Amino acid sequence: MSMEELARRVKKAALELAAVGTERKNKALARIAESLKERKEEIIRANRTDIARSEEENLPAPLVKRLKFDEGKIADVVDGIYSLIKLEDPVGKTLLATELDDGLELYKVTCPIGVIGVIFESRPDALVQIATLCLKSGNGVLLKGGSEARETNRILAEIIIGAAAEAGIPANWAALLETRADVNEMLKMDAYIDLIIPRGSNDFVRYIMDNSRIPVLGHADGICHCYVDEDADLDLALKVVVDAKTQYVAVCNATETLLVHEGIAPRFLPRLKKVLDEKKVELVGCSKTRELISVAPATEEDWRTEYLDYKLSVKVVSGLQEAIDHINTYGSGHTDSIITSSKGKAAQFMDYVDSGNVFCNCSTRFSDGFRYGFGAEVGISTGKIHTRGPVGLEGLVIYKYRLIGNGHIVEDYANRTRTFKHRKLNGEFSIEGE
Amino acid sequence: MSMEELARRVKKAALELAAVGTERKNKALARIAESLKERKEEIIRANRTDIARSEEENLPAPLVKRLKFDEGKIADVVDGIYSLIKLEDPVGKTLLATELDDGLELYKVTCPIGVIGVIFESRPDALVQIATLCLKSGNGVLLKGGSEARETNRILAEIIIGAAAEAGIPANWAALLETRADVNEMLKMDAYIDLIIPRGSNDFVRYIMDNSRIPVLGHADGICHCYVDEDADLDLALKVVVDAKTQYVAVCNATETLLVHEGIAPRFLPRLKKVLDEKKVELVGCSKTRELISVAPATEEDWRTEYLDYKLSVKVVSGLQEAIDHINTYGSGHTDSIITSSKGKAAQFMDYVDSGNVFCNCSTRFSDGFRYGFGAEVGISTGKIHTRGPVGLEGLVIYKYRLIGNGHIVEDYANRTRTFKHRKLNGEFSIEGE
Repeated sequence: MSMEELARRVKKAALELAAVGTERKNKALARIAESLKERKEEIIRANRTDIARSEEENLPAPLVKRLKFDEGKIADVVDGIYSLIKLEDPVGKTLLATELDDGLELYKVTCPIGVIGVIFESRPDALVQIATLCLKSGNGVLLKGGSEARETNRILAEIIIGAAAEAGIPANWAALLETRADVNEMLKMDAYIDLIIPRGSNDFVRYIMDNSRIPVLGHADGICHCYVDEDADLDLALKVVVDAKTQYVAVCNATETLLVHEGIAPRFLPRLKKVLDEKKVELVGCSKTRELISVAPATEEDWRTEYLDYKLSVKVVSGLQEAIDHINTYGSGHTDSIITSSKGKAAQFMDYVDSGNVFCNCSTRFSDGFRYGFGAEVGISTGKIHTRGPVGLEGLVIYKYRLIGNGHIVEDYANRTRTFKHRKLNGEFSIEGE
Repeated sequence: MSMEELARRVKKAALELAAVGTERKNKALARIAESLKERKEEIIRANRTDIARSEEENLPAPLVKRLKFDEGKIADVVDGIYSLIKLEDPVGKTLLATELDDGLELYKVTCPIGVIGVIFESRPDALVQIATLCLKSGNGVLLKGGSEARETNRILAEIIIGAAAEAGIPANWAALLETRADVNEMLKMDAYIDLIIPRGSNDFVRYIMDNSRIPVLGHADGICHCYVDEDADLDLALKVVVDAKTQYVAVCNATETLLVHEGIAPRFLPRLKKVLDEKKVELVGCSKTRELISVAPATEEDWRTEYLDYKLSVKVVSGLQEAIDHINTYGSGHTDSIITSSKGKAAQFMDYVDSGNVFCNCSTRFSDGFRYGFGAEVGISTGKIHTRGPVGLEGLVIYKYRLIGNGHIVEDYANRTRTFKHRKLNGEFSIEGE
């Protein structure tokens, strides 16, 4: 079957899935979780085949590590599905209800987006996570995995699609694109795919963003900053910056650049260096930084680099404005935090920094769907439309306007026989319960 | 100045405008309205120059008509600005507030998108409408008009930018791109422009959508349907269909295709034809339609055509499912209405039709921001992400997550010293008022 035909089928099934109720979707999710547990030996066997082949082909060790999908990982995705079942269905929520005139009722009601295209590199847990998030939010899904994980992806897709079918989910709501199908072909299918979610390295995500007309949900770089203001409590600043840099370095919300007010830098930087030296963090700094602590020089390139490693670039700035300008110039719109005891400066930082997540007196590492209390996370978006920051299920829905009348025509309002009343309604949308 | 330099300046000013309060923005809007009134003679003179030149250059008459910007049009845009002043500021609204843990407060607060690129054909009122909507929503704006309206656009932009500056709006928040600057160059500026709003013909909008990586808000075709169900009240159906087709034909929410249940077609179509004949509406129909009324045959192309004229294509269908399938195949996701007395069928239609606006027992012509009670309208979107249907000011904002702590670090939660509480907060975001 051609990829286009496959996509057409998923789109058709997605239109049916959009109207499936919460109970059936949750039943399907439970069936998927059980099926993953029941067939874990098969999954592990398929994954071993992928790992063995990848090692033979000399795939880099970090990629092989990401590819690994063992009993622990299976238990994690199963736990994730049980949490997802408990979350509120994002579909069918009434966002606005207005009586336009007597008997003419307008409801703005959430609905699925349609078909989500998921493109992921080696990590097979991304397949399970995103497919189940799409199911809960009523979206069809086209799954495109890396060839290095083909056996694992095949068994996972088979389990998910089979279990959902058992629970009465429309056939074809999900499809796995086999390796023969080119990513580039998928990126052109804007007639069938409404949104693409790429999961993988920065370069991979940037390639997807640069090569498709389909909207992309996600982020490439996560160049996060901490700015330590003149008015900061130094103990608090030290604690926050160390956490933001070192708590887990290989993630998008770890801090990559520290900005320090020149008035506090002579007291703060030597203390910080001592702690970061113990944690084996490499520091590079601007010329003013290097007058205060002994570190290698930072280049222009450093301000634009997401290290994802035990490395931090440091710049001494003249004040809040320079910090904001630096972040808006070199940042990636992800997460930036000010450490200050001045509420006015905190407010100014939050108003003027053009990022999805702007923090005060806490670690950039909090920028995460689970920590925000969203339950499940599709990813973190640095886009400026649709959704931004950590994205939960609400990033997978849009809305429809539903208008119910009783023979209402526009001509009556055009010729002033009638006038609009626009009264706020309080009820949820329901046509059958009228 | 290069277009890139201009765009960079607008972006910088937009970051400042994002933090400007409601009062100052409204003051600037009032100043713009007054200034347009004070300088109406200049505007009319500039517009006459454009019209004379366009007539000399043999511009098609409908384009010359759209170009006209006389005293009445000026009064209309001025009225629009006064209405806009009365609307609630879409910026700074708290959408979600959660206490993640003691003293760690998360707020999801609306903010402007950034820089909006507006591209419009001859109609100069679009320049005033969109520029003032951008100002109210705190966005910078790059305005690109057609060369046929260059004198009118120049004076309008000068008035708007000058009046806003008098009220203390950051300089460079808006800029007019002169004709030398190519539309194609603008479409490439994704580093500075966050969203494009095109205003013009379907072909024009489609060209913009097909040639930019920047998200586009709007719609190309408006192929709207009425479906008259077997259970419809025929008098009601007649009234609604006639309004949907004829109340104003040259607009996106006019109905272009009528679908009729085969069980009711023999009674409905002859009656409908009689009324539409009187209104000089040309009918084309499928073979079953032509067995019932004498009309020319409809081709496959007719189902995909937005006539924007006194013309209607008619198809007899076997029932609700065929109607839904037809709409989801040939429609443009704009507005579709079912005429039925069955609540169950109405609910099914609204669930399964994949359009931004799904109606029951009323005219498709209601699909409009003013009729919906939104006050101002940016346009109507047929997109599946960000915003859909008639778009008011809320389509010009996104949000930021603002997190306020007191030295909170992620390590405390990773090592289970602390756990998240995720308590719902009821207050609006305010850091200075704490």
